[in-house]
Amino acid sequence: MEELSSTLNEHVFAINTVWVALCAALIFFMEGGFALLEAGFVRSKNAMSIIAKVIIDIAFGGIAFFAVGFGIAYGHSNGWFAFDFGISNEDLGLGLSVSNTLFWFIQLGFAIAAISIVSGAIAERMKIWAYAVLVVVFCAILYPMVANWVWNPNGWLAQRGFNDFAGSAAVHAMGGFAALAAAMVLGPRIGKYNSDGTINSIEGHNLPLAAVGAFILWFGWFGFNPGSSLGAVGNWELIGAVVVNTFLASAAGGISTMVYTHFAYGKIDITMVINGVLAGLVSITAGCNVVSPVSAIIIGSVAGVLVDVAVLIIDKQMIDDPVGAVAVHGINGLFGTLAVGLFATEGGLFFGGGTSLFITQLIGVVVISLFSFTLTFVIMTILKKTIGIRIREEEEDAGIDLSTFGVRSYNLDD
Amino acid sequence: MEELSSTLNEHVFAINTVWVALCAALIFFMEGGFALLEAGFVRSKNAMSIIAKVIIDIAFGGIAFFAVGFGIAYGHSNGWFAFDFGISNEDLGLGLSVSNTLFWFIQLGFAIAAISIVSGAIAERMKIWAYAVLVVVFCAILYPMVANWVWNPNGWLAQRGFNDFAGSAAVHAMGGFAALAAAMVLGPRIGKYNSDGTINSIEGHNLPLAAVGAFILWFGWFGFNPGSSLGAVGNWELIGAVVVNTFLASAAGGISTMVYTHFAYGKIDITMVINGVLAGLVSITAGCNVVSPVSAIIIGSVAGVLVDVAVLIIDKQMIDDPVGAVAVHGINGLFGTLAVGLFATEGGLFFGGGTSLFITQLIGVVVISLFSFTLTFVIMTILKKTIGIRIREEEEDAGIDLSTFGVRSYNLDD
Amino acid sequence: MEELSSTLNEHVFAINTVWVALCAALIFFMEGGFALLEAGFVRSKNAMSIIAKVIIDIAFGGIAFFAVGFGIAYGHSNGWFAFDFGISNEDLGLGLSVSNTLFWFIQLGFAIAAISIVSGAIAERMKIWAYAVLVVVFCAILYPMVANWVWNPNGWLAQRGFNDFAGSAAVHAMGGFAALAAAMVLGPRIGKYNSDGTINSIEGHNLPLAAVGAFILWFGWFGFNPGSSLGAVGNWELIGAVVVNTFLASAAGGISTMVYTHFAYGKIDITMVINGVLAGLVSITAGCNVVSPVSAIIIGSVAGVLVDVAVLIIDKQMIDDPVGAVAVHGINGLFGTLAVGLFATEGGLFFGGGTSLFITQLIGVVVISLFSFTLTFVIMTILKKTIGIRIREEEEDAGIDLSTFGVRSYNLDD
Repeated sequence: MEELSSTLNEHVFAINTVWVALCAALIFFMEGGFALLEAGFVRSKNAMSIIAKVIIDIAFGGIAFFAVGFGIAYGHSNGWFAFDFGISNEDLGLGLSVSNTLFWFIQLGFAIAAISIVSGAIAERMKIWAYAVLVVVFCAILYPMVANWVWNPNGWLAQRGFNDFAGSAAVHAMGGFAALAAAMVLGPRIGKYNSDGTINSIEGHNLPLAAVGAFILWFGWFGFNPGSSLGAVGNWELIGAVVVNTFLASAAGGISTMVYTHFAYGKIDITMVINGVLAGLVSITAGCNVVSPVSAIIIGSVAGVLVDVAVLIIDKQMIDDPVGAVAVHGINGLFGTLAVGLFATEGGLFFGGGTSLFITQLIGVVVISLFSFTLTFVIMTILKKTIGIRIREEEEDAGIDLSTFGVRSYNLDD
Repeated sequence: MEELSSTLNEHVFAINTVWVALCAALIFFMEGGFALLEAGFVRSKNAMSIIAKVIIDIAFGGIAFFAVGFGIAYGHSNGWFAFDFGISNEDLGLGLSVSNTLFWFIQLGFAIAAISIVSGAIAERMKIWAYAVLVVVFCAILYPMVANWVWNPNGWLAQRGFNDFAGSAAVHAMGGFAALAAAMVLGPRIGKYNSDGTINSIEGHNLPLAAVGAFILWFGWFGFNPGSSLGAVGNWELIGAVVVNTFLASAAGGISTMVYTHFAYGKIDITMVINGVLAGLVSITAGCNVVSPVSAIIIGSVAGVLVDVAVLIIDKQMIDDPVGAVAVHGINGLFGTLAVGLFATEGGLFFGGGTSLFITQLIGVVVISLFSFTLTFVIMTILKKTIGIRIREEEEDAGIDLSTFGVRSYNLDD
Repeated sequence: MEELSSTLNEHVFAINTVWVALCAALIFFMEGGFALLEAGFVRSKNAMSIIAKVIIDIAFGGIAFFAVGFGIAYGHSNGWFAFDFGISNEDLGLGLSVSNTLFWFIQLGFAIAAISIVSGAIAERMKIWAYAVLVVVFCAILYPMVANWVWNPNGWLAQRGFNDFAGSAAVHAMGGFAALAAAMVLGPRIGKYNSDGTINSIEGHNLPLAAVGAFILWFGWFGFNPGSSLGAVGNWELIGAVVVNTFLASAAGGISTMVYTHFAYGKIDITMVINGVLAGLVSITAGCNVVSPVSAIIIGSVAGVLVDVAVLIIDKQMIDDPVGAVAVHGINGLFGTLAVGLFATEGGLFFGGGTSLFITQLIGVVVISLFSFTLTFVIMTILKKTIGIRIREEEEDAGIDLSTFGVRSYNLDD
């Protein structure tokens, strides 16, 4: 009987290992999505430099999250942070039924997704090594602290019943408001804004390449959201509900952007449609485990309009975010976290659950966003006053690909 | 003992959930494959518009399949259709060991794959909102009725023993003959055919981009075919057989196209080789569960030649199918369905099984193809006479990217 | 009780089938990665021809590995080879808990990965049909013999305790040294080397496309390495360790290349950073199951520098390897195999395990590399003297896309 119990337990671990390892691989693949989406949305003279920045997110961010970040996030928490190093073999009290190493790998995907949001907002003008420093600090300390609050069972937000299933707050608002701070300290690209306050649109250089990135992100999200179950045993109903909500919100986000831009601008803005799909995905990420399919459609529809409006407002503030990272991830991460307080089938305001959950969601996402914004602002300012964050004007004119890497992305004549 | 039985049952659901959720994600990713393949095969002035059409397939098609289509396909069938809405929680009598929601997600992949076949055939000349209407009707009613016949246990074809494992008929012939009807009603692109009946070849603008799409489709097919098992418990032999047959047919399709075009045209036609691989995949999709590996090679080899011949014949009829969707999916979907009646190890004509299975396959695929062709023809004609289906001549000259979306796909000079 | 045992056994097979089928799909997808990486790194006039060569790897190589290769690798081995045909249904004595057919599919991925390494080194100048012959012989006989030695339990290297978990030797050194021989017999591209021994750099035509390929390869490696467990039941700790090591080595490889090229050349070489990531992956592929995470970081860091140095040395020998395949896969496959002998937690020289394992690793990888180099050299020489291996000079000037396939990869003006 003991042997049977041990066999069954082994099966549980095996099933959950298959699930988490493959979902984590999908989440990891999203880095390719970020890189190619951002590359397509910037000018060709900076295409490889933005891909290099995403490789920095992965490589520097990954090592930082291995050496320091993971211990801060998932060690023995005092409610705000933990302080361990590397990947412990001991039971971390997280209720896992996969190995700590595999758990690290899926959490890595969330950490580097968060910083990859920032890489889009600082495109076309930031020094590469200064960016590497930001990545290391972000993935070693900033993000892990927030992950501790939200996903460590002892975290102060976890203790309050904060619901952020796959990270509308912990990943997307976190990354999005860091992106806002970084873009503000860095300043706009040369030629983006005129002295009279008018805006020069800078077109993406390769929209089909951006679409490659978008489809990879869309695909990867079906690891990101359901994979946050951290196991399949006991979760077969949950996983089905999560994938359906994830899909429906993304579809609704795409449709509402199409309809909105058609009527608001007279033409469908296909770049914004891609962002609308992503906004739908971001907005359902917190609540995909607790809302109904119809609510998912509503949440995604709102996100698809919100992203259009947010992009314009941010641009009017002369904050230059070349790929719309703040609008997609910051604003919709915030919205998606609040939407849980409104639409959760149990506890949501619109479903007779009162204001308690909504207030928890509000506190959580506001604290996370302010924390991320403020700390990133401070780090970027320190970097600016020390090693410098901005490439020289002639380098910006020539493009980072040529000035920093000595290459051209395209040599199509031969 | 009851507890053990419940634990074991939970394991079955968990294993099958992992399998179906991840196969469904792969199938979903095929939409990226369709989008990029089609974008690469059209002119650059229409590249983003075709990607937009695939996003419409996903977004409008997906919501339609959620709200109406799924209930028609998998509700309580009278043999021809069912009439339920949304995703029911009750047992649908389908013998599932995953949740209805997860089953919906994998079926969604098949539904939007079918309509995405159509998006290729109407490339470069169809109005975007008219296309959205076609997508909604197709995914809400047309495709679900056929899925009901074939895959609902009460469907009339299922009852007759029709074998269409992953949808050579229900997805590919269905989509391919709808594509034929749509291309016929829409008429050819300006400049494609001369008044003397000669043909002007219109080259794809970015063949490596098409290759990105082709590899994504090839990859996704390893979710599409084995995922149609709808579970892994009890199916380990089946899944192995299916992946081997799927691979072998695709390889054979690629080889036979290479050899055929080398000898027939004096040069290997690499665009057709991509189509040959896809034709091999389409042709084995019905029978991958019931034929031997050697039969899979034969079926794929035939498909690789069939697609070349079919492309030429369709073009000679002055039916303008920019990406070869009818030849790849329609003709080879038809052939693959019939091939089951010839090559099935049990019941196939060539294996001493007599004509009974072949006749069932013939009836099924002919009815499905005619149904799809006729209904799509009618819908397109109604759309033509009402809201209009064809963009204006000057829009077609300028390209849909600029006229409908106000963008250029590429800005490579900066 | 017997029924229970049978049910539990069925679950083991189902879990492992899900794991292996999906890892195998990821490995298969790596072919897209090879194709697009190589296409991006060559000139635009040869982009589709290199993609065609990878399709030949898959199609011709796959059929050859089905008909002949698999039986040689995994049939009844005499220590050096076996001689069976097709995929047997009987127990092959490999201790599998998946079907032989599914095992074939994952092994196929390794076989065609090995030959796809070669396709990069012979880019831009080799005749397509001569290449197809090389592919068939390589996948039918050469690679299967090495797989027999390393992974068949009766193979002479397996018997000696050679540790090559996912194939630093059997796949990467094997492919890399075949690539070296092929590039040597073929000779350099016209215009690559001057008569005074100076080198003309030939830039890749589309680096973002190469990045698409690199991200696909990186993603697929999370099937390649952990999937080599061939099952999840009993392996949950192993799988976690493997994915962490795989990631860390790739990240370290990217970082060390960035730092090295920054200091050595004054500019970060982004093309080499991509190769550095891949070198890190290649180098950890043998030992990801037996080294610690910190060792993985060290191994990857060394690989990231090694690849830079190796590329220069190979180029100075006037051996023209357009995509750096020999440096990435050959040199780092060799290094990674030896690294097991140094870093293995049990048996590694640096961990007090003495020299025994190191010597076994040395013998194994040297024999494999020499075997691969010599046989490929002979085959290429025979092909050269018979059907010819090199395209004509005017074809090389025009590009293989136009001369062999009659297409241009890009038509961006319309």
